[in-house]
Amino acid sequence: MSTEAFTRGRPFPRQPNVMVYQRSHPEKFAAALAELGVTHTVCGSEQSGWDDREVSDVEVVFGWNVPPALLRQMPRLRWVQWSGAGVDAVVLGGGLPAGVRLTRIVGQFSQPIAEYIFSYLLYVVKDLERMRAAQQRHVWEPFRAGRLAGLTIGVAGLGSIGREVVRKARAFDMHVLGLSASGAHADCVDRHYGPSEWDAFAAAVDVLVLCLPLTDATRHVVDARLLQRMKPDAILVNIGRGALIREPDLLNHLAHGGLRAAVLDVFEQEPLPADHPFWGLSNVYVTPHLSGPSEVEATCQFFVDNLVRYLSGQPLLGEVDLARQY
Amino acid sequence: MSTEAFTRGRPFPRQPNVMVYQRSHPEKFAAALAELGVTHTVCGSEQSGWDDREVSDVEVVFGWNVPPALLRQMPRLRWVQWSGAGVDAVVLGGGLPAGVRLTRIVGQFSQPIAEYIFSYLLYVVKDLERMRAAQQRHVWEPFRAGRLAGLTIGVAGLGSIGREVVRKARAFDMHVLGLSASGAHADCVDRHYGPSEWDAFAAAVDVLVLCLPLTDATRHVVDARLLQRMKPDAILVNIGRGALIREPDLLNHLAHGGLRAAVLDVFEQEPLPADHPFWGLSNVYVTPHLSGPSEVEATCQFFVDNLVRYLSGQPLLGEVDLARQY
Repeated sequence: MSTEAFTRGRPFPRQPNVMVYQRSHPEKFAAALAELGVTHTVCGSEQSGWDDREVSDVEVVFGWNVPPALLRQMPRLRWVQWSGAGVDAVVLGGGLPAGVRLTRIVGQFSQPIAEYIFSYLLYVVKDLERMRAAQQRHVWEPFRAGRLAGLTIGVAGLGSIGREVVRKARAFDMHVLGLSASGAHADCVDRHYGPSEWDAFAAAVDVLVLCLPLTDATRHVVDARLLQRMKPDAILVNIGRGALIREPDLLNHLAHGGLRAAVLDVFEQEPLPADHPFWGLSNVYVTPHLSGPSEVEATCQFFVDNLVRYLSGQPLLGEVDLARQY
Repeated sequence: MSTEAFTRGRPFPRQPNVMVYQRSHPEKFAAALAELGVTHTVCGSEQSGWDDREVSDVEVVFGWNVPPALLRQMPRLRWVQWSGAGVDAVVLGGGLPAGVRLTRIVGQFSQPIAEYIFSYLLYVVKDLERMRAAQQRHVWEPFRAGRLAGLTIGVAGLGSIGREVVRKARAFDMHVLGLSASGAHADCVDRHYGPSEWDAFAAAVDVLVLCLPLTDATRHVVDARLLQRMKPDAILVNIGRGALIREPDLLNHLAHGGLRAAVLDVFEQEPLPADHPFWGLSNVYVTPHLSGPSEVEATCQFFVDNLVRYLSGQPLLGEVDLARQY
């Protein structure tokens, strides 16, 4: 144990054994942690051949999409810091060993994801595609572009991401409705809906943005029945998880002229297969799960801040309530 | 004179003779005015054959790009309400007869123009073009998109449009600098620059947005020398007037790899000729002066509100200071 380890000037009372598990470049994460004073780390990915002894000594995991089978090989495991915002992959399959705490990153993805959302809302509503096409033809054809101002946006999920969407929607003078399970931030929207009020919520909005966690309660919440409730010129945006939407229902709805546009950054199967019909639909905007990029330094800093809390017995940031699944 | 004429419940004490001069559909404006209780109107456009007697009786003109020669045929003319925000066409040529008041529309264009600006800033910074191209090829290629957050935006001109840009920039967590002649709204930006500080202002920003009126002082303010001061990856946006930029200098600067992008909604010559090089440059976004559309009803309401003020001797909204030219 190093008594020289400091982060932001705070010494660690001890160095727990930490496994850094990342899909790509785990060594970058380990190096960033070392800079922050976390020294007792083993790091690797799904390709790694893990040393049994190293694995069995792990007390803390800092990782993303860690296989449950690997977690079960850690008798000393006490805490998993997920390096993403959505923990469905470890929670929904019951992959977390009993008694282990789970935290997720909160706050860090709000800004880029909200920028992503407004980039597409403006692109669609102001019809930049038409402007770009006219430029390619060198033709001067003014038209009356649409406006976000005055439209009603419905934000499903009022966590840190949803609330950042609300904040930006205010600056665009939109009417703002919200739906959330807890109702904890109901006062940030013009009208709040509970999970039993999806139909009225969906019917009221021009733009529906899904910022929800994937749980048993939210899986396939956007299905054929709900889509039928939506305005035919509404825009649907999903930055949460693909399985919030029953994708065949959405495809069928779009094929029948429902919705003005669907902006999809997440899918049930990722990468989205090259032959999936979403790619080719003119009013579907497909992006490769890039709206909320995980950044090594910021993610490591979040973990280290939480590690200090963990070691000193303070409440952890972003702790997942396993009963509600997020 | 009709004693039945009311607007928002207010009777007009008298009906002055009003000329409605609009490039297209002047009769729509006249009809909207009639609904608002303004009955003594003649209406037409550049194609109209005007009756000399009608013209000589005109006291008030409500119009856009009215030829100075026509204005000089109106011995009783007292007030011109321009139906746009920029009055350079009538002010800079000295086209307004002496003693005639001039007002312009203020406030009405701020929201759509600011939406236009942020649609393109997000399009460029987040590289939606790359996302769209990847979708066309059905390839899943995540990349780290840029962010507006943390960039520095410089807003030149802090009138109603510039201030709306500032407001939205705040919601995107940008650093906000401003330049204006009067300094009247200097407190809305992080740092304010005067007209003698263009160089420092231009050098400090990642995004330069021109929301200025065209005056003798602002004509060609963005020239080769100023462009050299700008960061090589800066974005230039012009929604003011084409002649704020010395266009050959901008073309030359772009040809040498200067600037990340130029977003141009206004040009020295409009429509932009089909063979103009701006059309074909991959980092120039050409749009046909559509960012701030004039809307008949809103414009007529503004005029009628001002007419009530005119008739009762109250200060007019949007009155142009002819000495400063806006």
